[in-house]
Amino acid sequence: MSLTFLNKRVLITGGLGFIGSNLARRLVDDGAEITLVDSLIPEYGGNLFNVSDIQGRVRVNISDVRDKFSFRHLVQGQDFLFNLAGQTSHLDSMADPFTDLEINCRSQLSILEACREANPTIRIVFASTRQVYGRPEFLPVTESHPIRPVDVNGVNKVAGESFHLLYSDVYHIPTTVLRLTNTYGPRMRIKDARQTFVGVWIRRILEGQPFEVWEGDQLRDFTFVDDCVDAMIGAAENDSTIGKALNVGGVEVVSLKQLAVQLIEAAGVGEYTIKQFPQDRKKIDIGDYYADASTLYELTGWKPTTSLIEGLRATVDWFRPRLKHYID
Amino acid sequence: MSLTFLNKRVLITGGLGFIGSNLARRLVDDGAEITLVDSLIPEYGGNLFNVSDIQGRVRVNISDVRDKFSFRHLVQGQDFLFNLAGQTSHLDSMADPFTDLEINCRSQLSILEACREANPTIRIVFASTRQVYGRPEFLPVTESHPIRPVDVNGVNKVAGESFHLLYSDVYHIPTTVLRLTNTYGPRMRIKDARQTFVGVWIRRILEGQPFEVWEGDQLRDFTFVDDCVDAMIGAAENDSTIGKALNVGGVEVVSLKQLAVQLIEAAGVGEYTIKQFPQDRKKIDIGDYYADASTLYELTGWKPTTSLIEGLRATVDWFRPRLKHYID
Repeated sequence: MSLTFLNKRVLITGGLGFIGSNLARRLVDDGAEITLVDSLIPEYGGNLFNVSDIQGRVRVNISDVRDKFSFRHLVQGQDFLFNLAGQTSHLDSMADPFTDLEINCRSQLSILEACREANPTIRIVFASTRQVYGRPEFLPVTESHPIRPVDVNGVNKVAGESFHLLYSDVYHIPTTVLRLTNTYGPRMRIKDARQTFVGVWIRRILEGQPFEVWEGDQLRDFTFVDDCVDAMIGAAENDSTIGKALNVGGVEVVSLKQLAVQLIEAAGVGEYTIKQFPQDRKKIDIGDYYADASTLYELTGWKPTTSLIEGLRATVDWFRPRLKHYID
Repeated sequence: MSLTFLNKRVLITGGLGFIGSNLARRLVDDGAEITLVDSLIPEYGGNLFNVSDIQGRVRVNISDVRDKFSFRHLVQGQDFLFNLAGQTSHLDSMADPFTDLEINCRSQLSILEACREANPTIRIVFASTRQVYGRPEFLPVTESHPIRPVDVNGVNKVAGESFHLLYSDVYHIPTTVLRLTNTYGPRMRIKDARQTFVGVWIRRILEGQPFEVWEGDQLRDFTFVDDCVDAMIGAAENDSTIGKALNVGGVEVVSLKQLAVQLIEAAGVGEYTIKQFPQDRKKIDIGDYYADASTLYELTGWKPTTSLIEGLRATVDWFRPRLKHYID
């Protein structure tokens, strides 16, 4: 348990989503006064069921990061802002690039302007993504890897994180950017692949259906959500991370086929078929990726500790009795 | 003279501005059918006087890059797009970050969407800026230098150029991005320092007033506008530059004090005072900068050829009898 958050006011955007709701659960136990902001856009990760067991211990404020007036009010008096709201679907960002821009780029500037005006000492952790790197030129990918996003989502996330670093550098709003890799665990979106393909794999298994693995030799690292929450807390607690963009990595590197095998083992049941990449996704695929997260370790002592099989078991076991809350 | 543009349709955004109008003059002589788009925002570089001597040989269309409907029409049937319109003031981008975002980021996406829908084979050259690099970690700055902008303008220009590269990679719209350094020459904005501080230096000299040099030891490279126009034409003519972001550099590297001395020599008159950096500008200053432009040379044979003293003389001589058209 961390004392950092005891009686502290914490705002979490995307707070009803996957990572936000897991973070909220942790911080509630740490004694924080939490406000969750979420707009519950149906295609995104927000789900009221995600916080049903901490109801009454958190304040829920339904609003959209695009609504700058709400934010001017909401940031006031807060000690921490975990800024996790975002459009996460790569494919949707290509089909509707302006919505992605409004949420992942323009709204970030607008939230930061609200902080600058109304609360310039608020401690911010911003959730960015490995997608900013594009197709890796070397592995593991360090923070100094070139930035060359392969989709509109990546371009806007670069802008979103750059605004955060800029407002940290110029206006001294203390901010850390974390570049997340594939995160999985309880409360993730499993209805479809909009948040991560792992979600739809789990759904298919729990519905007794085979799931599709596209190609399957691509390497990836996966972070269990509890480890991701630890990384966010570690970033917020360590001022040495201020003004930096830092990778969050996984505990092991596996191919998608190996992930599929482990998921079936974790579930005790399941089968998959190998498919070619659909053309529209192939264009924006990044190939192999895994992160070098050593800088975050050096600065905060953070390391992922949940093995993949352990994390997958916890995830499947958690969803099995709650499936209907995630697919309707 | 290039045959590339003979009877070709060329659209230039920011076409009444400094570089756009110089480019137009060159392409008119090369036999191009030119449409200049400019919104003539008073604080920006557009000036109808810039094209007074090629009036009747170019079509002028007053509209704003934020107006997506105009652009859907304007890009149709064009062979080339030199996309030069932008908000250029670093300080203004901090005071009014949303306008900078709308013009340098969102409108770029919107122009590219218009091209994708209405003219996906249009050959694009996009004017970006050395500002994307932020404070140089090494000199000369190559294209692989980290991207860490120090102001809102830099963040939005990164997004603007990334959208161009992305639409080139994914949708095969043939696009080259040029990262310009300080460009100077006839038809630049000299009313104030919004385009470059060199402008206001020239104005002060021609008005018989001393100009201010801030600190003065910072190193910079300067491109004479004719050389910059050559770089743009070289980029457009060489398909090997497609999908790349390339530095445009200057012919020599000088400190701002050395530049001041050369400018006074070029004008035959003038004096300067040394001042400390104003605080609001210091925060977003990049220190020393000069570019490694060897990749552009390798791909196109382009090199700047106008010496600084020669370029400054041409600039001062050009403005002297035309001063009133640039300061009213």
